[in-house]
This record gives sequence, C-alpha cells and structure tokens, in this order.
Amino acid sequence: MFDEKLKRVFSPRSIAVVGASDSFDKLGYHVMRSLIEGEYRGAIYPVSFRSQTVWGLRSYRSVKDIDGEVDLAIIVTPQTFVPEILADCGRKGVSGVVLITAGYRESGKEEGQRLEEEIRRVSLHFNIPIIGPNTFGFVNLTDKVNASFTCEFSLIKEGGLTLISQSGGFCHLIGFLALEERLGMAKIMSLGNRVNVDFACCLKYFLEEDEATKSIALHIEGTEDPRGIFETVERAKRKKPIIAYKAGKNEKGDLASKFHTGSLAGDYRIWKGAFRQYGILEVEDSEELIDTAKVLEVCPPLKGKRIAVLSGQAGPGIIACDALERKGLILARFTERTQEEIDTVLPHLAMRTNPVDMGPAWYNPEKIIRILKIVLLDENTDGIIFINTFASANLRLPAQLRRFLEETEPLPKPVIVCMPSPTGVWSDEIKMIDGCKGVTVLKTPERASRAMANLYMISSFKLC
Amino acid sequence: MFDEKLKRVFSPRSIAVVGASDSFDKLGYHVMRSLIEGEYRGAIYPVSFRSQTVWGLRSYRSVKDIDGEVDLAIIVTPQTFVPEILADCGRKGVSGVVLITAGYRESGKEEGQRLEEEIRRVSLHFNIPIIGPNTFGFVNLTDKVNASFTCEFSLIKEGGLTLISQSGGFCHLIGFLALEERLGMAKIMSLGNRVNVDFACCLKYFLEEDEATKSIALHIEGTEDPRGIFETVERAKRKKPIIAYKAGKNEKGDLASKFHTGSLAGDYRIWKGAFRQYGILEVEDSEELIDTAKVLEVCPPLKGKRIAVLSGQAGPGIIACDALERKGLILARFTERTQEEIDTVLPHLAMRTNPVDMGPAWYNPEKIIRILKIVLLDENTDGIIFINTFASANLRLPAQLRRFLEETEPLPKPVIVCMPSPTGVWSDEIKMIDGCKGVTVLKTPERASRAMANLYMISSFKLC
Repeated sequence: MFDEKLKRVFSPRSIAVVGASDSFDKLGYHVMRSLIEGEYRGAIYPVSFRSQTVWGLRSYRSVKDIDGEVDLAIIVTPQTFVPEILADCGRKGVSGVVLITAGYRESGKEEGQRLEEEIRRVSLHFNIPIIGPNTFGFVNLTDKVNASFTCEFSLIKEGGLTLISQSGGFCHLIGFLALEERLGMAKIMSLGNRVNVDFACCLKYFLEEDEATKSIALHIEGTEDPRGIFETVERAKRKKPIIAYKAGKNEKGDLASKFHTGSLAGDYRIWKGAFRQYGILEVEDSEELIDTAKVLEVCPPLKGKRIAVLSGQAGPGIIACDALERKGLILARFTERTQEEIDTVLPHLAMRTNPVDMGPAWYNPEKIIRILKIVLLDENTDGIIFINTFASANLRLPAQLRRFLEETEPLPKPVIVCMPSPTGVWSDEIKMIDGCKGVTVLKTPERASRAMANLYMISSFKLC
Repeated sequence: MFDEKLKRVFSPRSIAVVGASDSFDKLGYHVMRSLIEGEYRGAIYPVSFRSQTVWGLRSYRSVKDIDGEVDLAIIVTPQTFVPEILADCGRKGVSGVVLITAGYRESGKEEGQRLEEEIRRVSLHFNIPIIGPNTFGFVNLTDKVNASFTCEFSLIKEGGLTLISQSGGFCHLIGFLALEERLGMAKIMSLGNRVNVDFACCLKYFLEEDEATKSIALHIEGTEDPRGIFETVERAKRKKPIIAYKAGKNEKGDLASKFHTGSLAGDYRIWKGAFRQYGILEVEDSEELIDTAKVLEVCPPLKGKRIAVLSGQAGPGIIACDALERKGLILARFTERTQEEIDTVLPHLAMRTNPVDMGPAWYNPEKIIRILKIVLLDENTDGIIFINTFASANLRLPAQLRRFLEETEPLPKPVIVCMPSPTGVWSDEIKMIDGCKGVTVLKTPERASRAMANLYMISSFKLC
C-alpha cells in the first residue's frame, strides 16, 4: 500500500522538522540534534512558528513555504496544530510523516480519540503514511537517518537487524543493549498508535524492499490485524529470519498494553502457536533478543544439534552442557580421528571427550587454538561453544585467537565464544574477535548455549 | 571438625607460598602477585628450592626453615613434592593448606588416584585441613587475602556474599560478573577435589563463624556427602540466606562433572527437592545468581507479593509486568489515596494505575521522584520496580534520584531500579545509586523482575 512512499520515509533525501527548536527542553531540539549529530546527509528544513533560524539553519513558517522537495516530515508540535500541519504536508506532496506528538487514543480521553480520528481522516485524504502518533520515531543506521529525539542511537554499529516495535521505550532498551553488546542494526522503529502504518506494511517493506535488513525483530503488544503479520510472513517465503518478543502476555500486562497503544494484546497462546506455525522464533527476554540477533548476524547456519563445548576451565564448560541439553541440543560425539588428535595436544588430565577441558593447555594458547581447529574439522560436530575464563596464565589467548581468525577463511560452522574477564583486561581483543569470520562473542556460558539453541531453531526453519 | 583451623586458613596472620617464583610463566609468580597487589597485611614467606629471594622477599628452602609461625601454606609445586611438603607443614604446625597443584583423582589415572590417597593420609596424620587439590585457591575480600593465582579478584568490592564453589572457573566467571555488576563479596573459594575439606565444613564455617558473610552461594557439581550440606543448613536455623547453583544436571554434564571433580553429580531431582525443603533458593543462571545476591545484599525483605511497576516508558514497564506475573508475583492495587495523589502529579495521559507510565513527567524528574515517594508509602505495595530508560528529556533524572536517596532514611521496602542507558552516559550516577539506602540497580526489566521474585522466595523462607 505504501511501498514506494515508505522507501522515501525511511531513506529520505530531505526532511522537514516541524516544531524544530533551539531550546534544550523541547523535543524539537533533540530531533534536530539527532539528525545533525547523526550525520544525516540530506537537506534539513526546520519549521518553526517562532524563529528565523533553528540550529543555525534557515527556518520556515510552514512546510508549504519550503522551496525544495520534502520526503519526510517529522512533527513534534502540540496536538492542536497537527491536523493543519498534516494537511500542509499532504498539499506539499511529502512522502510520509513521523508524528512524535502524543496524547491521542492512548490518553484514554474522548478528546484524544477524536483527535486521532481526525488525523486518520487527513492521512486518508492525502494517502500519506504516518508513523505514530505517540512514537519516538525511527533510526536508519544504514543511511544515517536518526529521525528520533535520542541522538545516542547513532552510536549503534551498522548491521543487519531491523527492530519493529510498539514501544519507543523498548527501542531505547534494545538500542542501548545493542550498543553495549556490539550488535549491528539496520533500522529501529516504534509504530506508536499505528494510525495507518501497522506491523504488516512495515514488515513487508523490511522483508521485501530493504536490502540492508537481514533479519527482523518484532516487539508486539497488540494489534487489530494479527492476520496481516502472518500473511506477510507467509508471502515472504521465510527469506529473512524473524524474532518475536510478545509483550502483554498476562492479564495485567495485557491491560496495560491496551492503555499504552489502544489495542488489546489478545490471547497469548494463540500468538505463541502462530509464531511457531509461521517459523518465527519467539524470545522471552531482551538480552535473549540481542544475543540471538548477534548470532544470526554473524554465524553460518547451525545444520544439526551436535555441539562441542571446548572450555579452558571445566566448571563453566559443564554449565554450558547443562544449558545446551536443557534447550534440546546434544553434545557431539567426536570421530575417533578427532579424539586421537585432541589426545596428542592435551596431557592426560581431566576430560578430553566432549566437553573438552583445555585447562592443561593454559600456558599454550597455540594448543588451545589447535584444539579449536581440530574440532572445526570434526564431522560429528555442528557447532562449537568456546569458553575461556580469564586467568593470569591465559593472558595471551585472545590475541592468539584473533590472529587465527584473521588468517583463516570464514568458519564453516557456528562458533560462539565466551571470554569472561575483568572489565577492561581483554576488551580490545574481544571487540576484534566479535563478528570476525563467523564468530560471535556472548557474555556467559548460559547465554551462549541459549543463543546456539535459537540459532538451531532458526536454521531448522530454513531461514538463514 | 576444622572450625578453629579454618579461621586461621581464611584469615591467616602469615602465609608461606611453596613454589613461589619470579617467573611470569609459573603459577607461583601469580600467587605472590595476588597476595602483594591484593595488599595482604600479614607476613609472606616465599618457599623456593631455587632462589634466595622471590618478589624481593627472603626465600626459604623449606617450610620448616621459616622462623615465624605460619597459619596458611599455599602449595603450587609439581605433584611429586607435595606429600613431603605437606608433612613439613604438619610438623611446622601450619593451620591449613591451599593445594593448587592438579593432576590427582580428576586425571582419571591410577597414579593420580594413588597420589591423592597419599595426601589424604598425610593430612589425616597431622589433622591439617587441605583446600584442594586442583583448586584456584580462595579470596577473602574482608581481610584482603587473595590466596589465588588471579590478582584481579582483589578489585571486587567488599561485601556480604560468600561463594563456595566446586570449580575455579566458575569462581572466575562469578568474580568478573560481580566486578562488572558491582556486587560486594566476602569470600570466594573453590573446593577442588575436596580431599578433606568439603561443602559441609566450609558451609558451617561461613554460616556460623564468619561474621562478614551475610549470604552464601553454593555451586555444586557433585559430592559424596550431600547429607552433610543439608544437616549443616538445618543446624544453622536459616540465619543466612543460601543460593544454590546445581551443575551437572543432565546426563553429559553429570558425567563431565565426574571427570572434573571425581564424584558423580547424582540425580538432579533429588537435589531440587532438598533445596526446596531446606529453604535454599535455586538459581539456573550465573547472572541470576549475581542479581539475586545484589538484591539480598542491599534490599530489605520483601514481605508480600504485591509489586508496583513505575516506568518512565510504558513498553519496558509492560515487560516487567509480564516477567513478574510469570514468576508468581502480582501487581499491587494502590489504595485510593495513593491513586489520587498520583493523579495530581501526572496529566491525563497513558496509564496511571499500576503499572504507572511516568512518561508525561519526563521533563520533570522532581515529579518522577514524587511518584516514587507516594508509592513507597502505599500500604498495598510490598516492593517497587522503578524503570527509566534514558532519553534526552530525562537526562537529569539519576542525579535527582541520587539526591533523594542521600537525603532519605533507608527505604522501608525493596526498590529495584533499572536505568538502561548508552554506555557511559549515566554510569557515574548509577554507581552511586546502586546500593544506596536499600536500592539495587539491575540491568533489564526482566532481570529486575526475576530478582524481585527470588527476593520474595528468600524472604518467605524467613531468611533475610
């Protein structure tokens, strides 16, 4: 319905900021700042009723007065001005709008309801897509468009995950976790009240039109059109992996999400069943979402359930085994040849079958890397969890691992690395290892195992 | 059995390091470094067959040659020397030993089994407690004794949690997480092969003798004496909360833990039942252990199940509601008075019952703190989850929260704060809020909810 227009909205050549401001206390200030500090490369047209210039740029009284073409208008004015501004946008031929202003249906007041209806009428008349109202906006990291009031989103690494969320707060939570955990993202958007842009049309756009999007995360509270989501997924023939985080699962959460976005979340069990049926991976936790997206971004598919756990210390290795088995994966049984080769590297101490306790090789990072190489070639192993907790003796290990990765071809199977260490000690090396040649670094053995299991689920949906 | 001696072991006035070294490639180097850089205040006696001085200190040929008394001997020599050194320690009247050397029962070889039996015999003869063999040692943060080969443990904040673990690797994992998440710890120890110091005697010591220990975490792979653990807990009459992390739950993990520490983990269901019966809280994840310990350290008991969720953004608040309800807690129904007072602070927008969307007060941190104060007084609320995701508009909030906390009495109910923010932006303020007046800061809404539920479990055991 909005395919062509959405391209202009998410990758605009020019943006009008209606309600732009030089005052730190106004959202219109922060939207200007996000665009400018986020290094937006197109034209920015501030629109202000008060000032001649905003952020040092010439300002316009109305969208209509702007001399160039406008692809996207971001509106942050008080409610009462919005219908007229929207009509101006329509007449100007603006491709689409981000309507940050809140206080509509979600206010629970009749007046808010009425105002939202008015917006819907205007948008229908001009056939103009509106993201919002009651949204934080969106961030396009691929093209450096930070159309939000939070400039820090622009610090996130460019990557393949696109988040379509029903909550700006959730976008902030995931965005800051992504920043901390080095997850690359393509787009981050909050639908807000979904006056005429809902999950289905955005999902369609990012599944079929946006090449930078490699995988999609949905954060769903509730929608009047759940069918639209699943039909869109069906049509896209599972080309890109989809992760879903369903909120409002229980009675109170459900009720709260009604107040939040004006629609009931609906029976969770029905959602759960549909996710499964349509090959959408459901996650239950924001960190699980991050970890899973990281693995999807970097690792090759996990073709089977057989995992090797290689650990510099037995204890964390055993914990990973527990977590893997709890999630339905199994510990690989190495081929005889693999086992023989491992036995030539490690002295007779501790466990050498899977899990492999590599402790005796602490002072020999070369040996630890050799074990990794041997198991990468093992025919009976589909994926590897490689754990090395820092201890003085293995100080040089990450440097050695990095060198190996830099010199090798992309790894043929998923390798999730876990290197707990004192803040700062290994950080630089770990950053360089994370994402290199199919390797993902995750925080704990349990999180590594959970992400491996999710990768298996997604791989078995034939999604990646 | 070893009560008096364990006091001298864990809080020694003097320490001999047998196998002390000036060579970075030796564990004996790192043990010396840990003691010295960890600012150990007692006497340190290096024992070395080779050098006259080690780390600039006068070195001895044998423990017997040391002129002063020795409370603790840390042994890091090759296996073959160990029995003779132990006998020297016995004759010298050393109170106890940390035996870091590995390659005993856990090697799976007959020779290792035989050597371990020999150690057991010597220790029996001299009635000397041995922590290990095959241990990383222990760290006493209360008295600044870092009797391990990892000096970074000394960076952990002093606090009330003592970890008794069966794996040095697990101790490292938890230690580094504690460092990152600002968890205060009292003691961290790994039992290793438990030649004559097992869970029961350490648990007894930390439950009954060590005042600095306020709560205990057990990481258990397997033991021949599970009954000893539960009898000790029973005798201590639930004076201190205990958290258990059971490893080796499944077939393979169980087998691996047998190789690791030489004892079968046993049927997990039996453990699970016993934890419940004896009022021990079981956790399933290393981060859950950290979060729960943080809450135990700082928060008052949670006297009921009724939780208020106050959130600066609706989305993360709804996620917290889901997670709370999943864990069996319920959302508080405010008294009429509380609701009326909240209604005077927030404009008519979004949700004002529980969960409370405080979004409209973004630009007024004073108002957000006012809502927190109102709900702290609500009779129908037992605990509070307070979530504020960073956005430009609420920049000043943490400073305001800190000021409120610094000026108030310790809070009467548990408050778990969650403030997701871009790395660095709020870090300094968050550090000062975390632990202040009964407030704990945790990373995500889901982790805050899980820790609240665990606090409820422990509080209902009447443990805290």
